[in-house]
Amino acid sequence: MPPVAPRSGDSIFANLEHMNAELFTLTYGAIVRQLITDLEEVDEVNKQLDQMGYNIGVRLIDEFLAKSNISRCVDFKETAEVIAKVGFKMFLGVTASVINWDADGTSCSIVLEDNPLVDFVELPDNCQGLHYCNILSGVVRGALEMVSLYS
Amino acid sequence: MPPVAPRSGDSIFANLEHMNAELFTLTYGAIVRQLITDLEEVDEVNKQLDQMGYNIGVRLIDEFLAKSNISRCVDFKETAEVIAKVGFKMFLGVTASVINWDADGTSCSIVLEDNPLVDFVELPDNCQGLHYCNILSGVVRGALEMVSLYS
Repeated sequence: MPPVAPRSGDSIFANLEHMNAELFTLTYGAIVRQLITDLEEVDEVNKQLDQMGYNIGVRLIDEFLAKSNISRCVDFKETAEVIAKVGFKMFLGVTASVINWDADGTSCSIVLEDNPLVDFVELPDNCQGLHYCNILSGVVRGALEMVSLYS
Repeated sequence: MPPVAPRSGDSIFANLEHMNAELFTLTYGAIVRQLITDLEEVDEVNKQLDQMGYNIGVRLIDEFLAKSNISRCVDFKETAEVIAKVGFKMFLGVTASVINWDADGTSCSIVLEDNPLVDFVELPDNCQGLHYCNILSGVVRGALEMVSLYS
């Protein structure tokens, strides 16, 4: 039997259960607001968002592997592209770009052109230093750790 | 010009921006877990979930009114049906049933047949009394207050 071809982020997204993006955006805003109230320090909020994301990522990777038919990536560059083009599309409904590679190919930036988490968001002055979307890097960290690419 | 007909929850849902329901489910689980860690008492967690939902509902009502073409409901019974059949469909992608009306028509239950928030959820024994989905009643409360139906 021929191997099953990997599916694009678009086609996978179309076949998953969906919900309204605005409800998610507002719910995420409510989380961040709650954490700022409870923890007071933005550094602590950043840490907590990363940790929450990590806990999500270690579970979300199962759904990703089950639905995407992605086989093992050959290197970190391919991994980053798959996260940007398939992972973000599959879960957030948007694609991202991979830029800023260092010479060793061990570091890059994943940039979301259209980030649904920040719709309607205005940060007050006392939130300088807040990494509002830090949950996303936590998700990626948790997911990659499950496939042994991050330590 | 004839009045614009109200749209069904299905058709509205199809035209909104979407995201993956599983990411929302896991994110919601992370919120509840965080609140239990921070607040310790389940009664406090229930209150906080309701308050977060309220804050979401007072904003989500704008999206609801803008997209649904629903005109003023004639009574509370109609309001409950619109919440169950249009509101829940529009935002969570599922419909609900309205049951348990009291004799005065002032109290009812809205029952979700398929609640995406509770997928994969198992509560430990120390979470007795937790209203896991209390954010939803908060959302309804906040939204109704904005249209002057709840006080």
